Amino acid sequence: MNLLFLGTSAGVPTKQRNVAGVALRESKGKGWYLIDCGEGSQHQVLHTKLSLNSLKAILITHVHGDHCYGLPGLLASAAMNGRTEPLTIVAPAGIKAWLDATFETTQLSLSFDVEFVCSDELPSVEFERIAVTTFRLSHRAPSYAYGFTERKVESALDVDKLAQKGIPRGPLWGQLKQGADIEFAGERFKSRDFLISKHKPRKVVIAGDNDQPDLLSEACVGAQVLVHEATYTEAMAEKAGDVGHSYAKQVAAFAEAVALPNLVLTHFSPRYQLNPHVSPSIEDIRKEAQCVYSGSLYLARDFLELTLDKSGHFSEVAGE
Amino acid sequence: MNLLFLGTSAGVPTKQRNVAGVALRESKGKGWYLIDCGEGSQHQVLHTKLSLNSLKAILITHVHGDHCYGLPGLLASAAMNGRTEPLTIVAPAGIKAWLDATFETTQLSLSFDVEFVCSDELPSVEFERIAVTTFRLSHRAPSYAYGFTERKVESALDVDKLAQKGIPRGPLWGQLKQGADIEFAGERFKSRDFLISKHKPRKVVIAGDNDQPDLLSEACVGAQVLVHEATYTEAMAEKAGDVGHSYAKQVAAFAEAVALPNLVLTHFSPRYQLNPHVSPSIEDIRKEAQCVYSGSLYLARDFLELTLDKSGHFSEVAGE
Repeated sequence: MNLLFLGTSAGVPTKQRNVAGVALRESKGKGWYLIDCGEGSQHQVLHTKLSLNSLKAILITHVHGDHCYGLPGLLASAAMNGRTEPLTIVAPAGIKAWLDATFETTQLSLSFDVEFVCSDELPSVEFERIAVTTFRLSHRAPSYAYGFTERKVESALDVDKLAQKGIPRGPLWGQLKQGADIEFAGERFKSRDFLISKHKPRKVVIAGDNDQPDLLSEACVGAQVLVHEATYTEAMAEKAGDVGHSYAKQVAAFAEAVALPNLVLTHFSPRYQLNPHVSPSIEDIRKEAQCVYSGSLYLARDFLELTLDKSGHFSEVAGE
Repeated sequence: MNLLFLGTSAGVPTKQRNVAGVALRESKGKGWYLIDCGEGSQHQVLHTKLSLNSLKAILITHVHGDHCYGLPGLLASAAMNGRTEPLTIVAPAGIKAWLDATFETTQLSLSFDVEFVCSDELPSVEFERIAVTTFRLSHRAPSYAYGFTERKVESALDVDKLAQKGIPRGPLWGQLKQGADIEFAGERFKSRDFLISKHKPRKVVIAGDNDQPDLLSEACVGAQVLVHEATYTEAMAEKAGDVGHSYAKQVAAFAEAVALPNLVLTHFSPRYQLNPHVSPSIEDIRKEAQCVYSGSLYLARDFLELTLDKSGHFSEVAGE
């Protein structure tokens, strides 16, 4: 599973950072998922190896424009590129009506079907290689986190158990290995009882705007990675007032409390500069988080790519 | 008057070219007008000296997404940047309803008033330094061209005429020069009868998607510059079929017929490459137009800036 950040700025784009968008790539093949789709997301995609034809689903965390204004253009471009595969969109209810209005006003008819799943109902959605679960957050608009858990983890047959049951080596073992249940000597045996996963399923949680990181305790069970906004440092958050966002220390303290191994912060207020010698800078956010978090901390930047391998090791992909 | 191209691709953005957007700058001060606002227009603005605070009006030529999907994000960013000046939007009727739906769905409330002018009524709109007129085009959706004519052209007093009428040099001359009418010796004299323009008012026509350039004959009277789409070359237009667009030769032949001094082609199908050694390239479009047009021909590229000086001379601004 790879994460590729398409936009890391809050509210408005800057010269260096686009508004919200993260691509989650499957570990095999070209399939990918787009979490949030701020204006210009399709432009960012042009500068990656991602193809709109291989996009499995778009998941919108909430209705604010910096998280969804890129949707109509990206869908239009997918159609103009000749996409025919159906596309799943998981988003708050308002998005569906808005997309329909947009299609009608701008005379856009897509060349593919869109299956709309309403995130307000906290759906679980299963794709071939990934299962998605939805969690409620706290923001000025209904906002959600999506958990992405690997399905079909590579597994080995439990040879000892097979021997114990007297199931003979041969085609029956093959069927069990492929996930099919079998009958033998008048008894039914379930495939899943004879498979041992070679590794723990990989799990990544990607959260929308949220001022209560604690709401993610359940979502983070079994997760190796959390991607969460850190719009401000604590001092700046106090100045900004109650705008429904988190600050670095708050998110980092939560990650520490649930012993999360990897935390990626993103969605930085445009006032934070990439240049660490200019104040305020994104380094200020890093420093604040580092003070309370002992896991691996990453600060997202546009086109940063991170990979989570089978063993659960999370690291930056070189050659960005 | 300056033209600065923010996007020059048709339908979808490419790595080198954004979708439609042209900035027209006033000759004095920082005021500017945005004609079409495809997705990512606000991102392009970030790479220019234009400020969203100095934007006088946005004029949309037609409802297709590559000409308007950047509107909500640009308005949101103007609001987040603290704009308070009212903004005029001239656009087909559908755009107003769509913007209202977008504002509602995405909880966007602007910090400034928007005055909406419906282009379907072919309005004339007067700004302090620029008068805009609207012309109907032919496309799959109602599409318009906007003519921008300079107001308040610098002028000198007609001294001979003043002497003839016996109006004495002094405060009365000053009032007439400032545009105020006067009374003298029981008679009323109009300022405009005593002013001689120092140059012809500058006029630029910017057209939306259109498959009948001839419709612009009236719009081009007195214009020094026409900006028009040339989505294809003639051969490619035949392959594309009836999609409501013009090809290079068609537009160039019209410009030649009305003796237009300067023609700028834009809105090239994404298949046309910037690299002249790759086929098809934008040079193919240039060559086709040059065969039938004897005026000054420009092929737009993103961030190309052109200036129309008082004498009507049109040229590329160096140091792009």
